[in-house]
Amino acid sequence: MRVGVLTGGGDCPGLNAVIRGIVRKGTQEYGYEFTGYRDGWRGPLDGVTVPLDIPAVRGILPRGGTILGSSRTNPLKEEDGIRRIKENLAKHEVDALIAIGGEDTLGVAARLSGEYGIPCVGVPKTIDNDLSATDYTFGFDTAVNIATEAIDRLHTTAESHMRVLVVEVMGRHAGWIALHSGLAGGANAILIPEQRFDLDQVCAWVESRFKIRYAPIVVVAEGAMPKDGEMVLKDGSLDSFGHVRLSGVGEWLAKQIESRTGQEARTTVLGHVQRGGTPSAFDRWLATRFGLHAIDAVHEGDFGKMVALRGTDIVRVPIAEATAKLKTVDPKLYEEIGVFFG
Amino acid sequence: MRVGVLTGGGDCPGLNAVIRGIVRKGTQEYGYEFTGYRDGWRGPLDGVTVPLDIPAVRGILPRGGTILGSSRTNPLKEEDGIRRIKENLAKHEVDALIAIGGEDTLGVAARLSGEYGIPCVGVPKTIDNDLSATDYTFGFDTAVNIATEAIDRLHTTAESHMRVLVVEVMGRHAGWIALHSGLAGGANAILIPEQRFDLDQVCAWVESRFKIRYAPIVVVAEGAMPKDGEMVLKDGSLDSFGHVRLSGVGEWLAKQIESRTGQEARTTVLGHVQRGGTPSAFDRWLATRFGLHAIDAVHEGDFGKMVALRGTDIVRVPIAEATAKLKTVDPKLYEEIGVFFG
Amino acid sequence: MRVGVLTGGGDCPGLNAVIRGIVRKGTQEYGYEFTGYRDGWRGPLDGVTVPLDIPAVRGILPRGGTILGSSRTNPLKEEDGIRRIKENLAKHEVDALIAIGGEDTLGVAARLSGEYGIPCVGVPKTIDNDLSATDYTFGFDTAVNIATEAIDRLHTTAESHMRVLVVEVMGRHAGWIALHSGLAGGANAILIPEQRFDLDQVCAWVESRFKIRYAPIVVVAEGAMPKDGEMVLKDGSLDSFGHVRLSGVGEWLAKQIESRTGQEARTTVLGHVQRGGTPSAFDRWLATRFGLHAIDAVHEGDFGKMVALRGTDIVRVPIAEATAKLKTVDPKLYEEIGVFFG
Amino acid sequence: MRVGVLTGGGDCPGLNAVIRGIVRKGTQEYGYEFTGYRDGWRGPLDGVTVPLDIPAVRGILPRGGTILGSSRTNPLKEEDGIRRIKENLAKHEVDALIAIGGEDTLGVAARLSGEYGIPCVGVPKTIDNDLSATDYTFGFDTAVNIATEAIDRLHTTAESHMRVLVVEVMGRHAGWIALHSGLAGGANAILIPEQRFDLDQVCAWVESRFKIRYAPIVVVAEGAMPKDGEMVLKDGSLDSFGHVRLSGVGEWLAKQIESRTGQEARTTVLGHVQRGGTPSAFDRWLATRFGLHAIDAVHEGDFGKMVALRGTDIVRVPIAEATAKLKTVDPKLYEEIGVFFG
Repeated sequence: MRVGVLTGGGDCPGLNAVIRGIVRKGTQEYGYEFTGYRDGWRGPLDGVTVPLDIPAVRGILPRGGTILGSSRTNPLKEEDGIRRIKENLAKHEVDALIAIGGEDTLGVAARLSGEYGIPCVGVPKTIDNDLSATDYTFGFDTAVNIATEAIDRLHTTAESHMRVLVVEVMGRHAGWIALHSGLAGGANAILIPEQRFDLDQVCAWVESRFKIRYAPIVVVAEGAMPKDGEMVLKDGSLDSFGHVRLSGVGEWLAKQIESRTGQEARTTVLGHVQRGGTPSAFDRWLATRFGLHAIDAVHEGDFGKMVALRGTDIVRVPIAEATAKLKTVDPKLYEEIGVFFG
Repeated sequence: MRVGVLTGGGDCPGLNAVIRGIVRKGTQEYGYEFTGYRDGWRGPLDGVTVPLDIPAVRGILPRGGTILGSSRTNPLKEEDGIRRIKENLAKHEVDALIAIGGEDTLGVAARLSGEYGIPCVGVPKTIDNDLSATDYTFGFDTAVNIATEAIDRLHTTAESHMRVLVVEVMGRHAGWIALHSGLAGGANAILIPEQRFDLDQVCAWVESRFKIRYAPIVVVAEGAMPKDGEMVLKDGSLDSFGHVRLSGVGEWLAKQIESRTGQEARTTVLGHVQRGGTPSAFDRWLATRFGLHAIDAVHEGDFGKMVALRGTDIVRVPIAEATAKLKTVDPKLYEEIGVFFG
Repeated sequence: MRVGVLTGGGDCPGLNAVIRGIVRKGTQEYGYEFTGYRDGWRGPLDGVTVPLDIPAVRGILPRGGTILGSSRTNPLKEEDGIRRIKENLAKHEVDALIAIGGEDTLGVAARLSGEYGIPCVGVPKTIDNDLSATDYTFGFDTAVNIATEAIDRLHTTAESHMRVLVVEVMGRHAGWIALHSGLAGGANAILIPEQRFDLDQVCAWVESRFKIRYAPIVVVAEGAMPKDGEMVLKDGSLDSFGHVRLSGVGEWLAKQIESRTGQEARTTVLGHVQRGGTPSAFDRWLATRFGLHAIDAVHEGDFGKMVALRGTDIVRVPIAEATAKLKTVDPKLYEEIGVFFG
Repeated sequence: MRVGVLTGGGDCPGLNAVIRGIVRKGTQEYGYEFTGYRDGWRGPLDGVTVPLDIPAVRGILPRGGTILGSSRTNPLKEEDGIRRIKENLAKHEVDALIAIGGEDTLGVAARLSGEYGIPCVGVPKTIDNDLSATDYTFGFDTAVNIATEAIDRLHTTAESHMRVLVVEVMGRHAGWIALHSGLAGGANAILIPEQRFDLDQVCAWVESRFKIRYAPIVVVAEGAMPKDGEMVLKDGSLDSFGHVRLSGVGEWLAKQIESRTGQEARTTVLGHVQRGGTPSAFDRWLATRFGLHAIDAVHEGDFGKMVALRGTDIVRVPIAEATAKLKTVDPKLYEEIGVFFG
């Protein structure tokens, strides 16, 4: 038995831990061999492989990124994509695939497995934690820790100068990183994509802090939007994936707060530091267990499935089900946390 | 309505986050007032209070320890304990108590609530994560992160000198910290109290690493014990709580490994650094939510209950049920992780 | 004897350590009393004080920011500034002042001490490390550590996606933070304000990395400028101090690299996180010793002087001399480090 | 020209940065080739080499330990040691050696260079910072940061339980790590090998803290000793190098404090975590520059010398001079810091 492994989409701390878990258990317990596919679906599409065995995964557990490289290549959009993948898998004598990735990567795996007879198992990966089938995804805890540490640091600057500090964190469609890091960092307002914010309310929170001589921190997810009126972002350009660059809500907000409250405001955009570097202990644990259970699924021939966390258990769910719905922040949870605003 | 709050037992990162959550929501949403009781049950027993209101909890979220102090005083073992507590609560006009603590502290709360008509709500606290009613306890994630970072550091020393490094972590009766930090730190053997270890097996794991020119790390919970024969600890003295000092398994093990394998071995006992200092983002989130839900329980008159984590939800369970059984490491989970040994 | 203490200019990790050092030694060894002036020179100007004694400085050593607050108020530009300061010092019975701050704050102290008979001692503070009289200033080491950790994290993202990552760090006029963090973080190019950079050269370095399948990190000080042509920054607005906002070199550079090399490039602007939060051990040591030596200078009546680090010694130099010349990066040092570019 | 490189003695964060600096500059600027010798002097003695070129040093900057391995082998004590080294160097066509190490390793280099005509350049390495020729040695700053962070964490535990915490840090003959981390961590007493401590004084400091309801932290270097009477250490055994194990002053002290003051006391021995893992930014900077200057010395034929830090400059001094005298803590500096005791 030979198993192909690939990682797709944005990088995320813990990818290497998953790969290591798969290879260690697959080799030692099941006697499998492995083929590493380079740069997501581009690997099986173009037949680009890397050696993948126990020596190859030694020492990678604490390392961020992915030793397999990543890309956003979608074989379903490539001419002859399915045929090329099938041919390459046959040529490499690969019997099954484990695809580690987000919605797009897993969506391909679901169709390959369901419609084209290519046995696939999925491992979910999204730093944004916005996948409904699992309690948490790996990488999220690391991102939240990094953002929280940054907010901790920004408090002292805010206090010393009695300034508003707006911290823009990741989260285009779901506010999980903002919510968790904002709460953990003691933010005075947390703005998420799920709920359009009221600028007057934000300014009222800001002003209530100054009344007691404390300087406010506002944590805003990059995808958050105001309730009324328009947000004119300074950068409407498209990035290399054709998405409109949403960067700017943080700076826009700081200017609005400045002009409405008369208080100085500054913005920090945390950016890519949130998704790089060594994974937290929680993410190493979760990612490793995802890897161990993914290879178990292969061993049991349970294809078309994805591993997921439920409480402290790793379970399996149909890939299709898992990618069907975005897990957004429940309004009740947001309200619960709202007691700390202002 | 006036609510008394106390923290008992060993300190744990996140205690202050719980207290802050209780006071913020209690004051802002329910209009309650608070009395802080000093040093666990000693506070209501001797009538020692500290002011507890919103200004008192400002800035405490990132701080380790507890602003209320702690002790292991057990009022059920004190002469007239119950009567003195009742009198003090009456004197302070305290209508309900929130007790944050481990098995002992919560055990008292359960009996006060059940047998003596003192309305109590519990918040579970154990850095060891060994409470069966909840998926995780706060403080545990912080401890695991600290231990993991230490193990990361020890790898390079081990490699440079080709030595065995034995790392002794907390865990007298349950091996959760050892299991999580050992896995996350890439340990080559993890020894836990739940399963007596076989010294020959440990030495075999150690030797298998040297064969491939890697230096092994052995993570051992302080309560782990060998299968056969005896472990003669160098310190059989009693500590101030009357417990036999179990410190020593780490050093004992290093000496055994040295004499059996002929490889140099060193021990590091992580000790108190595991339970001090600023909480991780996960622990700040969990502890804060425990605080918010504990005051909700008071508000709803749902006494004799304890808050607990189930998946991503905070639920309530009878205190008595929660403290009935130690949550130890499931043998299946230990076996799952065992693929990384050697 | 009563000594006034103030902190001016941008905040910087270590300010509280200086204050604590002054107060502990002044009180215990010399029997002095202290008056804390709030918000830099605004304190003595408007007579705004805060209590400053041993209990007030307890626990502040690890905390970033300044318990005295800060501002950029310049009394020499205020009507009647000198007279108001003199009156307030007289009213508060303050015999001498210790001013902790950068070029502006110390420039005022030098003139007050030299021309107006107000006995002042200076403690240099600049996170940018650009003061010629001292080997290092406190806060710098913390900033460099934070930036280095961020660069460490960004490497894995760069590698996983084979992207260029441009990291913009602090440094308007001197490239010390860029140089130290860029070297420590293993950057492939470091651009500093002292030497206009050649865009072709930068692109050549970037391309040389891709040839060996590594993704480059470019560290750029916010004040760095291209050799030829113009840098059209996207934001030419003035900030609240009337300075032109120089933010933008990072994003400008990423776009230039993208269009010239055809490689994807991203920017991370580290911003305020570099100057907030708990000081590194080095900064706590240096700042504390600066405080101890500043109060010694007061005790010896050695006014108009500033403390400075030379090797491992703390010395005193005339304030005026210290602020006369910016300490920029020596071209030889930059060349020495240049061996790592590309 | 071919240069041999070796690392000897205890491992130390920054060794890899030195090696990388040597190889990058030597290859790129001078066109040299390199031979890595494995495990200190054992390498040239037994002819054990590892490849050492630019690909070999890629990515090692942030890694602790040494890619060359280390040992305490002393060729002057080996039969025919000098002859074997000469033969191996000749066989490998190595023209000069760079030895990175402490007193012992450099002592050999001095004699080989001075008496036996083997051209050597030294790079000083001691985590203890106890070398008189240089302001600082790399690795020291990392160790101090780790110890300081541990002390920060221990404060909250001490406060919560009103206990004395004794922290034993590295330093057999010099108290630099204790002094710096103790000061930076806000310790209430710092005990160093250079000055025998007075137990009554230590207990008086401890008690003075309890009077103001704070719990004391005592930082003690492993080589510190009491003034009067004897310290009966629990472990008088020899370690594998034949040194008497000095571990124990921390635990001994805690017991003494407990019995004399009646306050509970606990000990944490930081141990090997102080010398492992990724170097701080300061150590990466210093170690890299040491490497760059060491290869310059080779290039200039300036043998028998060692690189050293003076202020912000890297200079060269005779190896022999550098290892002649231990740099201990100046009594005046210790007295200066003493203002924070109690």
